[in-house]
Formats: sequence, structure tokens, C-alpha cells
Amino acid sequence: MHITSQQRLDDGVDESRFTLGDIPGILWTPASASASVPAPLILLGHPPLGLRAMYPRLAARARHAAADGFATATIELPGSGDRPRWPAVEQARGDLRRAMEAGEPVGDEIVDALVLPLVDKAVPEWQAALDALLSLPGIAGPVGYSGGVISVGVRLAVVEPRVSAAVLFAGSLVPRATFEEARRVTIPLHVLLQWDDEGNDRQASLDLFDAFGSEEKSLHAHLGGHTGVPQHAGDAASRFLVRHLR
Amino acid sequence: MHITSQQRLDDGVDESRFTLGDIPGILWTPASASASVPAPLILLGHPPLGLRAMYPRLAARARHAAADGFATATIELPGSGDRPRWPAVEQARGDLRRAMEAGEPVGDEIVDALVLPLVDKAVPEWQAALDALLSLPGIAGPVGYSGGVISVGVRLAVVEPRVSAAVLFAGSLVPRATFEEARRVTIPLHVLLQWDDEGNDRQASLDLFDAFGSEEKSLHAHLGGHTGVPQHAGDAASRFLVRHLR
Repeated sequence: MHITSQQRLDDGVDESRFTLGDIPGILWTPASASASVPAPLILLGHPPLGLRAMYPRLAARARHAAADGFATATIELPGSGDRPRWPAVEQARGDLRRAMEAGEPVGDEIVDALVLPLVDKAVPEWQAALDALLSLPGIAGPVGYSGGVISVGVRLAVVEPRVSAAVLFAGSLVPRATFEEARRVTIPLHVLLQWDDEGNDRQASLDLFDAFGSEEKSLHAHLGGHTGVPQHAGDAASRFLVRHLR
Repeated sequence: MHITSQQRLDDGVDESRFTLGDIPGILWTPASASASVPAPLILLGHPPLGLRAMYPRLAARARHAAADGFATATIELPGSGDRPRWPAVEQARGDLRRAMEAGEPVGDEIVDALVLPLVDKAVPEWQAALDALLSLPGIAGPVGYSGGVISVGVRLAVVEPRVSAAVLFAGSLVPRATFEEARRVTIPLHVLLQWDDEGNDRQASLDLFDAFGSEEKSLHAHLGGHTGVPQHAGDAASRFLVRHLR
């Protein structure tokens, strides 16, 4: 892990840009964090739109989490942002767009081709980032995961024992394989659902929530479309992470 | 409205027992409330099990609300507690019990016979209580409604313009007529659902949530049975009422 730049944001949050091999990432730490009082960590998931485009929303979430005493970090997803194009996933994305524009149902094979390779490649990268981040002096467990592609969050919850609570956003295409994996999730979950999400199958989201094996799970549905999550819903998700990680 | 007894609870909440005609009720006010700084009011709904049986839970909700600066009040439901028996509803209750014990589906006619007369009789009583309560010097609008039989909450939200936000518990039998009324509800709603509620049709609860006409509504589903609402879910409902009533 190589720190490429550092700056202090105006509200006392330190922002460090880093690379992990050829993967760019960002770490935010509250100024109060130190080797003797390390901050717990939240991994900030995001959709595959590139860190540059997602930066304003990620930085806002990071500031909010820092006020609760958390460090936060994120890495670029494979095939997104400044990382090399990924022809197979781009083709699946084209197939999805064509199906949606033609008003056709989006078949399982398109969803699988779009999401499963992303999960297979991204999750080990997030785990490698976790190795590097937890070796820094101001950061310690427990670790939470919040947001982003839900299949990535589900896989991470299943395979990564250091992740002990997750906020998941039921708002993307979900392969059948993710429903199977969901049964093996046991960590506490706080699941957000936008009730009128245009690109989302509501019943599939409810079925996925039902499938999670966790003994503590809750679903929070708000009126509105994909990007309409109200501020107070973000606050409630933050309180969930505070309850489980602090 | 006739105050029959008053006491100060140990945490500085004043509890007044009252009767409104022959209907018993309880009012809790924060000690800080006065004619010059009146408290907003939350009506505490409850299932038809009698105020005596419900008292510990109601008083706990009242204390919690008082800490947020709210007065709270509740009245006995018709046919419950010390009020005269109500043969028609008791018969419907018997029909319900027999159907459930026999493992038969609970027909619409049983649900209608059980719930609709209760709604028709209770809602004007809650409105009369509201008239009396809002004439007291330490209490003022806005008014919220929280909990209890969901069909009562829905009717009250439709017919009573002084109720400006409601926390509803999607955990009871819902007549078809309530779904129709739900479309006419426009106030902000915070709806709680216990995901594994034994006595509850989960899909009906989701359909009811979908039917509400409110522009601001959210559904909060937690794992567990009817009485398993976690403490933090109550806290989130309180924050909803603070957002809308204070």
C-alpha cells in the first residue's frame, strides 16, 4: 500500500489517497485517531461508476462517519474509473442497456455476466485492502461494510470474518447465486430499500432480505427512487454501525 | 373530562388518570410543560387488551416520549378493560380463535366483524379525547398518533386533521376497507413490521404500506415475532415523531 497524497479536510478529517498494487483507493481518518486510540473501520462500497464520479457522496459519508469516530476507506472497482476497461463486463453492460431500452425482461444470464465476475474479482481486492488498512497504526477492527453493489457486500459478509456488521442497499440487479449466499450471512444487517427504485425489482429485494441468515437484520424502505434515500435514513444506518462497531 | 388522580412518577413525569364520560384514560406530561411552553401531544394507541394489562408498556413509552418533550395520552378501547363487554366483538373474537385453532383461513367476514365496529366506535372517542386534551393549558398541537390497532390509526389519520404524523404497527388483522382508506392518508408515516409475526400476513402488511397515499412514508421491518420489536426500533420511531412534531 502506497500513500500518494494526503490532505486535511476542513472539518478535521484526514484524507489519504493510496494505491494497492494498481488499484486506487482513499482512506479517511478522524483527526482524533492515533496508534493508542485507533478508530474502527467502515469500508465504503459504491456502484461501478468510478471513484472520481462518486467522490462527493463518498466524502460526505466519510465525514459523517468520522464524526462518529470511524475511519472509512474505499477502493476503485475492477473495470471502473482509472482502472483498465474490462471487455466482458462492458459487453454485459451493453446487453443490459439494450434489453432495458427494448423493454425486454433482463435475463438471468445478463445479470450473472454483469455481476458475478465483478464479485469474484472485487471481493479479494477489498480483502487485500483490509489487510493493508488494518496494519496502519490509527486503524483497528471491528470492521463494517456499507453500501455499494449488494452482491459484493453479501460475498464479503460470507467470506471475510473481520467484517462484523453491514449496511446493504437493495437497489441493484441480484444474481440467483447471491440469494444462495445470503442464507450463509450471519452478521447483523441493516438493509435499505428505495420503494420506487426504477431499476430495482422490489419483490426480489424483499425475497433477498428474507433469505439472509442473520439473526439480527432489519429492512428500511423509504418512498422514492434509487438516489432518493432521505438524510434521516443515512443517520439511522450510521446509528446501526455505531451500535455494532463501537 | 374529569381528572380522577394525579401522581408524579420518579423521573419527573406527571401521570393523570381521567375519565371522559365513561371512558377511562391516562395523560402523561413532562414536568417542564406549562401554559407558556405547552408540550406537543402523542396519542398512544394499543391493542384491545385493556389499559391495566397494557400499563407497563404504555408508561414506558410515555416516559420515553416525555424525555423528548412530548405529552402522551391514551384511552381505553370500547369493550376492553373496565368498559362494558361488547357481545358482537366478543363473538367475532371467538370466531377468530376457533378459525385459528382449527387451522382454517381467517375469512374477511371475521376480520370485518372484529375490526370495523371497533374503528367506527373508537375513532370518535379518540377525537373527543383530543378535544379535551388540547383544551388543557400545558398541551398544544401538533399531535401524533403511535401504535395500536392499525385500522384505528389509519382512520384517525384520514378523518382527523389535527393528527399530523403517525407511527403505525403493521401487525394486526387488516380489513379490506382499511386498504381503501390507506390511499387517502397523506400525513408522514413511520410503519413498523415484525418480519416473523405469527399472527400477521406479511404480504398484506407490505401491500398496506404500498397503498398509503403519503408522500413521506417508510417501512421498518425487524426480525422477530409480534412482541419482539427491538429497543432501537422504538428509538427510531421516536426520532420520526421528533422530526415531525417538534
